[in-house]
Amino acid sequence: MNTTQRLAEYVSQRQFETLSPETIAVSKHCLLDFLGVTIAACDEPLVRIVKDQVEEEGGHAHATLVAGGKKVSLAQAALVNGCASHAHDYDDVHPAMSGHPTVPVAPAVLALAEKENASGRDLILSLVTGIDAECIVGRYLGSSHYARGFHATATLGSLGAAAACAKLLGLGVEQTCNAFGIAATQAAGLKSMFGSMCKPFHAGKAAANGLLAAQLAARGFDSQTSVLEVEQGFGLTHADQLSESNLCQALEQDSFVPTTLFKYHAACYLTHSALEAAKALRSELKIEPGDIEAVEITVNKGHFSVCNIQQPCTGLEAKFSLRGATAMVLSGIDTADIHQFNDAVVTQPAMVSLRDKISVVAFPEQGHPESVVRILLKSGAEHTKEWDVAIPASDLDLQLCKLTDKFCSLADPVLGEQRAERVVNLVASLQNLECIGDLCEAVRGS
Amino acid sequence: MNTTQRLAEYVSQRQFETLSPETIAVSKHCLLDFLGVTIAACDEPLVRIVKDQVEEEGGHAHATLVAGGKKVSLAQAALVNGCASHAHDYDDVHPAMSGHPTVPVAPAVLALAEKENASGRDLILSLVTGIDAECIVGRYLGSSHYARGFHATATLGSLGAAAACAKLLGLGVEQTCNAFGIAATQAAGLKSMFGSMCKPFHAGKAAANGLLAAQLAARGFDSQTSVLEVEQGFGLTHADQLSESNLCQALEQDSFVPTTLFKYHAACYLTHSALEAAKALRSELKIEPGDIEAVEITVNKGHFSVCNIQQPCTGLEAKFSLRGATAMVLSGIDTADIHQFNDAVVTQPAMVSLRDKISVVAFPEQGHPESVVRILLKSGAEHTKEWDVAIPASDLDLQLCKLTDKFCSLADPVLGEQRAERVVNLVASLQNLECIGDLCEAVRGS
Repeated sequence: MNTTQRLAEYVSQRQFETLSPETIAVSKHCLLDFLGVTIAACDEPLVRIVKDQVEEEGGHAHATLVAGGKKVSLAQAALVNGCASHAHDYDDVHPAMSGHPTVPVAPAVLALAEKENASGRDLILSLVTGIDAECIVGRYLGSSHYARGFHATATLGSLGAAAACAKLLGLGVEQTCNAFGIAATQAAGLKSMFGSMCKPFHAGKAAANGLLAAQLAARGFDSQTSVLEVEQGFGLTHADQLSESNLCQALEQDSFVPTTLFKYHAACYLTHSALEAAKALRSELKIEPGDIEAVEITVNKGHFSVCNIQQPCTGLEAKFSLRGATAMVLSGIDTADIHQFNDAVVTQPAMVSLRDKISVVAFPEQGHPESVVRILLKSGAEHTKEWDVAIPASDLDLQLCKLTDKFCSLADPVLGEQRAERVVNLVASLQNLECIGDLCEAVRGS
Repeated sequence: MNTTQRLAEYVSQRQFETLSPETIAVSKHCLLDFLGVTIAACDEPLVRIVKDQVEEEGGHAHATLVAGGKKVSLAQAALVNGCASHAHDYDDVHPAMSGHPTVPVAPAVLALAEKENASGRDLILSLVTGIDAECIVGRYLGSSHYARGFHATATLGSLGAAAACAKLLGLGVEQTCNAFGIAATQAAGLKSMFGSMCKPFHAGKAAANGLLAAQLAARGFDSQTSVLEVEQGFGLTHADQLSESNLCQALEQDSFVPTTLFKYHAACYLTHSALEAAKALRSELKIEPGDIEAVEITVNKGHFSVCNIQQPCTGLEAKFSLRGATAMVLSGIDTADIHQFNDAVVTQPAMVSLRDKISVVAFPEQGHPESVVRILLKSGAEHTKEWDVAIPASDLDLQLCKLTDKFCSLADPVLGEQRAERVVNLVASLQNLECIGDLCEAVRGS
């Protein structure tokens, strides 16, 4: 049995009964977090453009536009919801796929599940299967895929969406192989697009491509059935080398879902360890900006090219500025709130003054903590805090509390508190829902 | 001005008045040939599957399904017509892009032109611009793009479709740059898919992706605007090296359209030189299969891995068999007729017997003709013919006659002779049509 077939068999044979309680719990965290960031972005300019395009095309009202008050075709729902879900770059992360696992998968599977009148268990199983497929292929391709310039959220995301939809449609091994082939030959997305509307567009396209792949495969459309490993297939055209042993290990792993990482700051993920350290210091020491003489943030040198804008002038720039975002945290601003990253907050004199007391330096060698924040107070006292956000949560109840807070802060202003609470409750009891129609109705808004 | 901007400016500034008579003439050959192969494939299994999918999605009736008797949304028309146009692998070819230039561009531009009530001149100008853009980017990326495993019809095709639609929508330089970015970050298609339904699917997806790119750019969607040359952009992730000087030369060329090559045999393009040589020998020498003692076909060694199936058992295999297809020609079978490539014809004893008299050998070194066919007759006489189909036609009237014959043989059985003739006449006078609605109505069928 070849590599693609092995993955297809894994997808085809997966059953809800074999999922661990942690996997089920975190898959619901993924879904809730996805819904929150998607709801919050429903009126972003890039989302409005894609909605206008969809409106012009027309289509049967089969699947919910999240916070869109209406239904559109499945492909359109996957595209628009996918674009929205990644618009704020505030969605979850998984190192195994070097990207964002839920945003390419959930929009596809949510649309298909709605049309198919699927149960909550079906939705959980297919979401988990999609995320695991992305991570397994991510391990198979290794780090060179992302390093070459491919946005894994887009490329591996297409395969994840295909796996999830194949699962939901109950495809057998051969059709699932075809779905992987059809998805992989559509898989695209360039890292050079970061900073443009195309980055979130990648998530929407991956969702739509993967959905289409599974739908066509279900109708008997064929493809090369060894796309992962064959010469001039997806793996060999998109990575330096492929690791069969990594794939086998990954297939044997219970699930990658429990090790999903979530964002609690509406800023670049690489600022998060420093922000958490600064937040902890502020809280533990009960300090105000006026108490601070100087701050030193030590990070990996690689962060410098991603999130070290020295003098951010806009909200968007502050998201990619260790100095700017840390100054916000030390000023007591809630960096979980997407609306706080605005030009006025970032450029107020007190903020600029605090920011200019912050310096960013690089660790001299390997084997250091993720980030270290050292604060020198005017009193002469000095305090240091290390932090690493890349450690998955062990307390899942606490994680759910934090994610519920995040969801409500994102969804309440759009859906209203009552409806947002209804979404929280429906997701919490997802495995008991006979049909996900109520959940779709709740997130649709009016 | 950077590379992408330069190409965008070229696209944006192109005008019908600057097109040479040859470019206009051959662009109409491309369109007629595209329509013929698309009409002939309207009921192929892969096309039916994609049509069923589209039917399920629904959409406004804005653009014609070729030989589909109805209109669908623009994106759907681009997808379905694109899949159909490449289903028989019988469409045109251009070496500058290492692929099929018209099938990713024409479906997109035809759909958009119909919706926009465009004139025949607009259609010609945008088709030419799209084909030229593909060829220019093809020259910029060089041969490594295809060699790495990317199906250029799919990848460069997305950019060609975007260029054509950007032209038709009248986008300026900045929006055209965005259209290239949005198209390039969707551009995908693996050569390992050859032999599966995904190969024609690539043409449909390229058309739909390029169309969407231009439509979104027109609505203000942005992207990385240097996608061709920027680090981790399309060029550097999809080719070994980029040639600025090749691009400049290509931009100065009048047009690549007049050097488009057309297929007159419903078989792999790499068999065509041998088939033409065999056809000429049969006709000149007035020989029948019974006269033949042995045949030797000499080709480039590279052909062996593409079209040298020794004992074809099916019509599809015969398309990729120098021995099988040449035996058909020497038996007097019309290899321009897609229906002749069927299992019964290929396996009849007389055909197998003739095929087994044919041997295929490789040229020993560089600098040889494309193909040589040597026939030893039972009489002892020996005759040799060299042929190279990769030389563009110089007699465009003759080319039109041949393409009209091909079109009618493909379209008559589907549209009926009268309607097919109407299509031929409308394409012939395309630059005089104030609106292409009549042409769309004629190819739609009933």
